[in-house]
Amino acid sequence: MVEANNAKFWRAVPAPCVGYVWAYMSWGQYGRDVSSATDQIAAYASQTPAAGDGLDAWVLDIDDTCLSNLPYYQAKQFGAYDPTAFKAWASRGTCPGIPAMVRLFWTLKGGGFRVFLLSGRDEEALGASTAANLAAAGFAGYDRLILRYVRLSSVVFKSAERRRLVEEGYRIRGNVGDQWSDLQGDCAGDRVFKVPNPMYFVP
Amino acid sequence: MVEANNAKFWRAVPAPCVGYVWAYMSWGQYGRDVSSATDQIAAYASQTPAAGDGLDAWVLDIDDTCLSNLPYYQAKQFGAYDPTAFKAWASRGTCPGIPAMVRLFWTLKGGGFRVFLLSGRDEEALGASTAANLAAAGFAGYDRLILRYVRLSSVVFKSAERRRLVEEGYRIRGNVGDQWSDLQGDCAGDRVFKVPNPMYFVP
Repeated sequence: MVEANNAKFWRAVPAPCVGYVWAYMSWGQYGRDVSSATDQIAAYASQTPAAGDGLDAWVLDIDDTCLSNLPYYQAKQFGAYDPTAFKAWASRGTCPGIPAMVRLFWTLKGGGFRVFLLSGRDEEALGASTAANLAAAGFAGYDRLILRYVRLSSVVFKSAERRRLVEEGYRIRGNVGDQWSDLQGDCAGDRVFKVPNPMYFVP
Repeated sequence: MVEANNAKFWRAVPAPCVGYVWAYMSWGQYGRDVSSATDQIAAYASQTPAAGDGLDAWVLDIDDTCLSNLPYYQAKQFGAYDPTAFKAWASRGTCPGIPAMVRLFWTLKGGGFRVFLLSGRDEEALGASTAANLAAAGFAGYDRLILRYVRLSSVVFKSAERRRLVEEGYRIRGNVGDQWSDLQGDCAGDRVFKVPNPMYFVP
Protein backbone atom coordinates (compact mmCIF):
# COMPACT_ATOMS: atom_id res chain seq x y z
CA MET A 1 0.00 0.00 0.00
CA VAL A 2 2.88 2.36 0.76
CA GLU A 3 4.95 1.50 -2.30
CA ALA A 4 2.01 2.06 -4.65
CA ASN A 5 1.26 5.35 -2.84
CA ASN A 6 -2.21 4.16 -1.88
CA ALA A 7 -1.53 4.73 1.81
CA LYS A 8 -0.73 8.42 2.35
CA PHE A 9 -0.36 10.68 5.37
CA TRP A 10 0.26 7.84 7.81
CA ARG A 11 2.15 8.91 10.92
CA ALA A 12 3.53 5.63 12.20
CA VAL A 13 3.66 1.98 11.22
CA PRO A 14 0.35 0.51 12.47
CA ALA A 15 0.85 -1.89 15.39
CA PRO A 16 -0.19 -5.03 13.46
CA CYS A 17 2.44 -4.21 10.81
CA VAL A 18 5.43 -3.61 13.09
CA GLY A 19 6.57 -7.23 13.06
CA TYR A 20 6.15 -7.42 9.32
CA VAL A 21 8.14 -4.22 8.75
CA TRP A 22 10.84 -5.37 11.14
CA ALA A 23 11.21 -8.70 9.33
CA TYR A 24 11.06 -7.10 5.89
CA MET A 25 13.75 -4.56 6.75
CA SER A 26 15.98 -6.87 8.79
CA TRP A 27 15.96 -10.26 7.11
CA GLY A 28 17.15 -9.46 3.62
CA GLN A 29 14.09 -8.74 1.51
CA TYR A 30 14.56 -4.99 1.77
CA GLY A 31 18.15 -5.22 0.58
CA ARG A 32 17.14 -7.51 -2.28
CA ASP A 33 14.37 -5.13 -3.30
CA VAL A 34 16.72 -2.13 -3.28
CA SER A 35 19.14 -4.16 -5.40
CA SER A 36 16.35 -4.95 -7.85
CA ALA A 37 15.57 -1.25 -8.08
CA THR A 38 19.20 -0.29 -8.64
CA ASP A 39 19.47 -3.01 -11.31
CA GLN A 40 16.54 -1.35 -13.09
CA ILE A 41 18.09 2.07 -12.65
CA ALA A 42 21.50 0.99 -13.95
CA ALA A 43 19.86 -0.67 -16.96
CA TYR A 44 17.90 2.48 -17.75
CA ALA A 45 20.95 4.72 -17.26
CA SER A 46 22.96 2.58 -19.67
CA GLN A 47 20.21 2.99 -22.29
CA THR A 48 20.39 6.79 -22.09
CA PRO A 49 24.13 7.41 -21.79
CA ALA A 50 25.57 10.75 -20.78
CA ALA A 51 26.24 13.01 -23.76
CA GLY A 52 29.71 14.08 -22.68
CA ASP A 53 28.92 17.76 -22.18
CA GLY A 54 28.67 17.30 -18.41
CA LEU A 55 25.00 18.23 -18.26
CA ASP A 56 23.35 14.82 -17.88
CA ALA A 57 22.37 14.53 -14.27
CA TRP A 58 20.80 12.22 -11.73
CA VAL A 59 19.18 13.36 -8.53
CA LEU A 60 19.32 11.10 -5.49
CA ASP A 61 17.56 11.57 -2.20
CA ILE A 62 19.60 10.89 0.94
CA ASP A 63 17.58 9.47 3.85
CA ASP A 64 16.76 5.83 3.21
CA THR A 65 17.85 6.21 -0.37
CA CYS A 66 21.63 6.67 0.01
CA LEU A 67 21.93 6.47 3.80
CA SER A 68 19.93 4.13 6.00
CA ASN A 69 18.09 5.18 9.13
CA LEU A 70 17.14 1.59 9.87
CA PRO A 71 19.21 1.40 13.10
CA TYR A 72 17.34 4.42 14.44
CA TYR A 73 13.88 3.19 13.46
CA GLN A 74 14.58 -0.32 14.74
CA ALA A 75 15.60 1.09 18.11
CA LYS A 76 12.41 3.10 18.37
CA GLN A 77 10.25 0.23 17.04
CA PHE A 78 9.17 2.23 13.96
CA GLY A 79 7.24 4.82 15.93
CA ALA A 80 6.03 8.22 14.77
CA TYR A 81 8.43 10.92 13.54
CA ASP A 82 10.23 12.64 16.41
CA PRO A 83 12.17 15.61 15.05
CA THR A 84 14.41 16.04 18.11
CA ALA A 85 15.37 12.38 18.37
CA PHE A 86 15.89 12.11 14.62
CA LYS A 87 18.15 15.16 14.60
CA ALA A 88 20.21 13.66 17.43
CA TRP A 89 20.56 10.42 15.47
CA ALA A 90 21.41 12.09 12.16
CA SER A 91 23.92 14.45 13.75
CA ARG A 92 25.99 11.45 14.86
CA GLY A 93 26.74 10.86 11.18
CA THR A 94 26.64 7.09 11.52
CA CYS A 95 23.90 6.16 9.06
CA PRO A 96 25.12 3.14 7.09
CA GLY A 97 25.37 3.56 3.35
CA ILE A 98 22.83 1.40 1.54
CA PRO A 99 25.12 -1.00 -0.34
CA ALA A 100 23.23 -1.23 -3.65
CA MET A 101 22.92 2.56 -3.75
CA VAL A 102 26.64 3.08 -3.13
CA ARG A 103 27.29 0.81 -6.12
CA LEU A 104 24.72 2.68 -8.21
CA PHE A 105 26.29 6.01 -7.28
CA TRP A 106 29.66 4.87 -8.63
CA THR A 107 28.03 3.35 -11.70
CA LEU A 108 26.37 6.68 -12.49
CA LYS A 109 29.58 8.60 -11.92
CA GLY A 110 31.47 6.07 -14.03
CA GLY A 111 28.91 6.64 -16.78
CA GLY A 112 29.72 10.35 -16.85
CA PHE A 113 26.61 11.58 -15.06
CA ARG A 114 26.56 14.46 -12.62
CA VAL A 115 25.06 13.31 -9.34
CA PHE A 116 23.13 15.74 -7.16
CA LEU A 117 22.12 14.75 -3.65
CA LEU A 118 18.89 16.50 -2.73
CA SER A 119 17.51 16.14 0.78
CA GLY A 120 14.98 17.68 3.12
CA ARG A 121 17.54 17.53 5.94
CA ASP A 122 18.08 20.91 7.59
CA GLU A 123 21.28 22.43 6.22
CA GLU A 124 22.20 24.46 9.26
CA ALA A 125 21.69 21.70 11.81
CA LEU A 126 22.84 18.69 9.81
CA GLY A 127 25.00 19.98 6.95
CA ALA A 128 28.38 19.07 8.39
CA SER A 129 27.36 15.71 9.82
CA THR A 130 25.59 14.74 6.60
CA ALA A 131 28.63 15.54 4.46
CA ALA A 132 30.85 13.54 6.81
CA ASN A 133 28.36 10.66 6.90
CA LEU A 134 28.15 10.52 3.11
CA ALA A 135 31.93 10.43 2.81
CA ALA A 136 32.22 7.69 5.43
CA ALA A 137 29.53 5.67 3.65
CA GLY A 138 31.31 5.78 0.31
CA PHE A 139 29.57 8.63 -1.48
CA ALA A 140 32.45 10.76 -2.74
CA GLY A 141 32.58 13.02 -5.75
CA TYR A 142 28.95 14.01 -6.00
CA ASP A 143 28.42 17.31 -7.73
CA ARG A 144 26.38 19.11 -5.11
CA LEU A 145 24.84 18.39 -1.75
CA ILE A 146 21.58 20.32 -1.58
CA LEU A 147 20.01 20.45 1.87
CA ARG A 148 16.93 22.32 2.99
CA TYR A 149 17.62 25.96 3.88
CA VAL A 150 14.03 27.23 3.77
CA ARG A 151 10.86 26.01 5.42
CA LEU A 152 8.99 24.47 2.54
CA SER A 153 7.25 21.14 2.08
CA SER A 154 9.32 18.39 0.53
CA VAL A 155 7.61 18.51 -2.87
CA VAL A 156 7.81 22.31 -3.11
CA PHE A 157 11.43 22.55 -1.95
CA LYS A 158 12.66 19.70 -4.12
CA SER A 159 10.73 20.91 -7.17
CA ALA A 160 12.29 24.36 -6.81
CA GLU A 161 15.79 22.95 -6.47
CA ARG A 162 15.35 20.64 -9.45
CA ARG A 163 14.01 23.55 -11.48
CA ARG A 164 17.14 25.48 -10.57
CA LEU A 165 19.28 22.63 -11.89
CA VAL A 166 17.29 22.57 -15.14
CA GLU A 167 17.69 26.33 -15.47
CA GLU A 168 21.44 25.86 -15.05
CA GLY A 169 21.26 23.60 -18.10
CA TYR A 170 21.29 20.17 -16.50
CA ARG A 171 19.13 17.44 -17.99
CA ILE A 172 17.71 15.40 -15.12
CA ARG A 173 17.84 11.91 -16.60
CA GLY A 174 16.65 10.18 -13.50
CA ASN A 175 15.51 10.81 -9.96
CA VAL A 176 15.67 8.27 -7.15
CA GLY A 177 13.94 8.45 -3.79
CA ASP A 178 12.24 6.40 -1.11
CA GLN A 179 9.26 8.78 -0.86
CA TRP A 180 6.78 9.63 -3.59
CA SER A 181 7.21 13.26 -2.53
CA ASP A 182 10.80 13.01 -3.79
CA LEU A 183 9.51 12.04 -7.21
CA GLN A 184 6.49 14.26 -7.78
CA GLY A 185 6.22 17.95 -8.61
CA ASP A 186 8.13 19.95 -11.22
CA CYS A 187 11.18 18.85 -13.18
CA ALA A 188 10.89 15.40 -11.65
CA GLY A 189 13.25 13.91 -14.22
CA ASP A 190 12.90 11.82 -17.37
CA ARG A 191 12.26 8.79 -15.16
CA VAL A 192 11.70 8.40 -11.48
CA PHE A 193 12.54 5.37 -9.38
CA LYS A 194 11.06 4.54 -5.99
CA VAL A 195 13.03 2.47 -3.51
CA PRO A 196 11.04 0.80 -0.76
CA ASN A 197 10.46 2.41 2.61
CA PRO A 198 7.79 0.96 4.87
CA MET A 199 9.16 2.82 7.94
CA TYR A 200 7.77 6.33 7.58
CA PHE A 201 5.91 8.69 5.24
CA VAL A 202 6.99 12.18 4.20
CA PRO A 203 4.10 14.21 2.75
CA MET B 1 9.21 -3.22 -8.94
CA VAL B 2 5.98 -3.19 -10.93
CA GLU B 3 3.81 -1.72 -8.18
CA ALA B 4 6.22 1.16 -7.60
CA ASN B 5 6.40 1.72 -11.37
CA ASN B 6 10.14 1.11 -11.41
CA ALA B 7 9.80 -1.68 -13.96
CA LYS B 8 8.24 -0.27 -17.13
CA PHE B 9 7.70 -1.51 -20.66
CA TRP B 10 8.05 -5.18 -19.76
CA ARG B 11 6.34 -7.51 -22.21
CA ALA B 12 5.92 -10.68 -20.19
CA VAL B 13 6.53 -11.94 -16.69
CA PRO B 14 10.22 -12.99 -16.65
CA ALA B 15 10.65 -16.76 -16.40
CA PRO B 16 12.15 -16.69 -12.88
CA CYS B 17 9.10 -14.75 -11.65
CA VAL B 18 6.35 -16.94 -13.13
CA GLY B 19 6.11 -19.19 -10.07
CA TYR B 20 6.10 -16.22 -7.78
CA VAL B 21 3.36 -14.46 -9.75
CA TRP B 22 1.31 -17.63 -9.93
CA ALA B 23 1.51 -18.12 -6.16
CA TYR B 24 0.87 -14.44 -5.42
CA MET B 25 -2.21 -14.36 -7.63
CA SER B 26 -3.57 -17.79 -6.73
CA TRP B 27 -2.96 -18.32 -3.04
CA GLY B 28 -4.71 -15.37 -1.48
CA GLN B 29 -2.18 -12.59 -1.16
CA TYR B 30 -3.49 -10.80 -4.27
CA GLY B 31 -7.04 -10.82 -2.93
CA ARG B 32 -5.87 -9.57 0.45
CA ASP B 33 -3.88 -6.79 -1.18
CA VAL B 34 -6.85 -5.69 -3.30
CA SER B 35 -8.95 -5.68 -0.14
CA SER B 36 -6.36 -3.52 1.60
CA ALA B 37 -6.50 -1.11 -1.32
CA THR B 38 -10.29 -0.97 -1.31
CA ASP B 39 -10.23 -0.40 2.47
CA GLN B 40 -8.00 2.62 1.85
CA ILE B 41 -10.26 3.80 -0.96
CA ALA B 42 -13.44 3.45 1.08
CA ALA B 43 -11.83 5.30 3.99
CA TYR B 44 -10.77 8.13 1.70
CA ALA B 45 -14.17 8.28 0.00
CA SER B 46 -15.90 8.55 3.37
CA GLN B 47 -13.65 11.49 4.26
CA THR B 48 -14.68 13.41 1.14
CA PRO B 49 -18.41 12.65 0.92
CA ALA B 50 -20.44 13.37 -2.17
CA ALA B 51 -21.97 16.83 -2.13
CA GLY B 52 -25.44 15.76 -3.19
CA ASP B 53 -25.48 17.60 -6.51
CA GLY B 54 -24.71 14.41 -8.40
CA LEU B 55 -21.37 15.64 -9.68
CA ASP B 56 -18.93 13.83 -7.38
CA ALA B 57 -17.48 11.01 -9.41
CA TRP B 58 -15.13 8.07 -9.25
CA VAL B 59 -13.44 6.53 -12.26
CA LEU B 60 -12.71 2.82 -12.23
CA ASP B 61 -10.72 0.86 -14.76
CA ILE B 62 -12.17 -2.50 -15.82
CA ASP B 63 -9.54 -5.14 -16.66
CA ASP B 64 -7.96 -6.46 -13.47
CA THR B 65 -9.54 -3.64 -11.53
CA CYS B 66 -13.25 -4.57 -11.66
CA LEU B 67 -13.04 -7.77 -13.71
CA SER B 68 -10.30 -10.36 -13.37
CA ASN B 69 -8.39 -11.85 -16.28
CA LEU B 70 -6.55 -14.22 -13.98
CA PRO B 71 -8.10 -17.38 -15.49
CA TYR B 72 -6.85 -16.34 -18.92
CA TYR B 73 -3.34 -15.44 -17.78
CA GLN B 74 -3.04 -18.55 -15.63
CA ALA B 75 -3.94 -20.70 -18.62
CA LYS B 76 -1.29 -19.05 -20.77
CA GLN B 77 1.27 -19.07 -17.95
CA PHE B 78 1.49 -15.27 -17.85
CA GLY B 79 2.98 -14.94 -21.31
CA ALA B 80 3.21 -11.86 -23.47
CA TYR B 81 0.13 -9.94 -24.64
CA ASP B 82 -1.68 -11.68 -27.49
CA PRO B 83 -4.41 -9.39 -28.82
CA THR B 84 -6.31 -12.11 -30.70
CA ALA B 85 -6.36 -14.59 -27.84
CA PHE B 86 -7.24 -11.87 -25.35
CA LYS B 87 -10.13 -10.67 -27.48
CA ALA B 88 -11.43 -14.26 -27.71
CA TRP B 89 -11.26 -14.58 -23.93
CA ALA B 90 -12.85 -11.21 -23.21
CA SER B 91 -15.64 -11.74 -25.73
CA ARG B 92 -16.81 -14.77 -23.72
CA GLY B 93 -17.83 -12.35 -20.99
CA THR B 94 -16.81 -14.69 -18.19
CA CYS B 95 -14.24 -12.61 -16.32
CA PRO B 96 -14.94 -13.00 -12.60
CA GLY B 97 -15.73 -9.85 -10.69
CA ILE B 98 -12.99 -9.00 -8.21
CA PRO B 99 -14.86 -9.36 -4.91
CA ALA B 100 -13.37 -6.42 -3.02
CA MET B 101 -13.98 -4.16 -6.00
CA VAL B 102 -17.61 -5.23 -6.35
CA ARG B 103 -18.05 -4.26 -2.70
CA LEU B 104 -16.26 -0.95 -3.25
CA PHE B 105 -18.45 -0.22 -6.28
CA TRP B 106 -21.59 -0.56 -4.16
CA THR B 107 -20.03 1.43 -1.33
CA LEU B 108 -19.30 4.31 -3.71
CA LYS B 109 -22.77 4.17 -5.20
CA GLY B 110 -24.25 4.02 -1.70
CA GLY B 111 -22.24 7.11 -0.84
CA GLY B 112 -23.89 9.04 -3.65
CA PHE B 113 -20.97 9.01 -6.08
CA ARG B 114 -21.31 8.68 -9.81
CA VAL B 115 -19.21 5.78 -11.04
CA PHE B 116 -17.67 5.83 -14.49
CA LEU B 117 -16.04 2.72 -15.88
CA LEU B 118 -13.22 3.70 -18.23
CA SER B 119 -11.39 1.03 -20.17
CA GLY B 120 -9.04 0.62 -23.09
CA ARG B 121 -11.15 -2.30 -24.33
CA ASP B 122 -12.25 -1.87 -27.92
CA GLU B 123 -15.84 -0.67 -27.95
CA GLU B 124 -16.86 -2.19 -31.26
CA ALA B 125 -15.41 -5.63 -30.63
CA LEU B 126 -16.05 -5.97 -26.90
CA GLY B 127 -18.78 -3.49 -25.98
CA ALA B 128 -21.67 -5.94 -25.70
CA SER B 129 -19.72 -8.72 -23.99
CA THR B 130 -18.17 -6.26 -21.53
CA ALA B 131 -21.55 -4.82 -20.54
CA ALA B 132 -22.94 -8.33 -20.05
CA ASN B 133 -19.85 -9.42 -18.12
CA LEU B 134 -20.07 -6.43 -15.79
CA ALA B 135 -23.72 -7.12 -15.09
CA ALA B 136 -23.06 -10.80 -14.40
CA ALA B 137 -20.20 -9.88 -12.08
CA GLY B 138 -22.35 -7.57 -9.97
CA PHE B 139 -21.54 -4.14 -11.38
CA ALA B 140 -24.97 -2.63 -11.99
CA GLY B 141 -25.97 0.99 -12.00
CA TYR B 142 -22.73 2.60 -13.08
CA ASP B 143 -23.22 5.93 -14.76
CA ARG B 144 -21.36 5.32 -17.99
CA LEU B 145 -19.30 2.59 -19.58
CA ILE B 146 -16.58 4.29 -21.62
CA LEU B 147 -14.68 1.98 -23.95
CA ARG B 148 -12.02 2.83 -26.48
CA TYR B 149 -13.43 4.01 -29.82
CA VAL B 150 -10.28 5.62 -31.20
CA ARG B 151 -6.74 4.37 -31.59
CA LEU B 152 -4.92 6.25 -28.88
CA SER B 153 -2.51 5.18 -26.18
CA SER B 154 -4.05 4.39 -22.82
CA VAL B 155 -2.82 7.56 -21.11
CA VAL B 156 -3.95 9.81 -23.97
CA PHE B 157 -7.35 8.18 -24.41
CA LYS B 158 -8.13 8.04 -20.70
CA SER B 159 -6.91 11.59 -20.11
CA ALA B 160 -9.18 12.88 -22.89
CA GLU B 161 -12.20 11.00 -21.54
CA ARG B 162 -11.57 12.19 -17.99
CA ARG B 163 -11.20 15.75 -19.26
CA ARG B 164 -14.57 15.37 -20.96
CA LEU B 165 -16.12 14.34 -17.65
CA VAL B 166 -14.56 17.35 -15.92
CA GLU B 167 -15.87 19.61 -18.67
CA GLU B 168 -19.33 18.13 -18.09
CA GLY B 169 -19.01 19.37 -14.53
CA TYR B 170 -18.03 16.18 -12.72
CA ARG B 171 -15.48 16.36 -9.93
CA ILE B 172 -13.30 13.27 -10.16
CA ARG B 173 -12.79 12.49 -6.48
CA GLY B 174 -10.86 9.32 -7.09
CA ASN B 175 -9.49 7.10 -9.82
CA VAL B 176 -8.71 3.41 -9.43
CA GLY B 177 -6.68 1.25 -11.77
CA ASP B 178 -4.26 -1.64 -11.93
CA GLN B 179 -1.89 0.17 -14.33
CA TRP B 180 -0.03 3.39 -13.69
CA SER B 181 -1.16 4.46 -17.17
CA ASP B 182 -4.73 4.50 -15.78
CA LEU B 183 -3.66 6.98 -13.14
CA GLN B 184 -1.33 9.38 -14.94
CA GLY B 185 -2.03 12.15 -17.42
CA ASP B 186 -4.66 14.90 -17.26
CA CYS B 187 -7.58 15.14 -14.87
CA ALA B 188 -6.32 12.07 -13.05
CA GLY B 189 -8.54 12.75 -10.06
CA ASP B 190 -8.09 14.18 -6.57
CA ARG B 191 -6.52 10.90 -5.53
CA VAL B 192 -5.43 7.87 -7.47
CA PHE B 193 -5.28 4.31 -6.18
CA LYS B 194 -3.26 1.49 -7.71
CA VAL B 195 -4.38 -2.08 -7.27
CA PRO B 196 -1.74 -4.76 -7.81
CA ASN B 197 -1.16 -6.41 -11.16
CA PRO B 198 2.03 -8.40 -11.65
CA MET B 199 0.65 -10.14 -14.78
CA TYR B 200 1.13 -7.57 -17.54
CA PHE B 201 2.10 -3.96 -18.26
CA VAL B 202 0.10 -1.46 -20.30
CA PRO B 203 2.24 1.51 -21.40
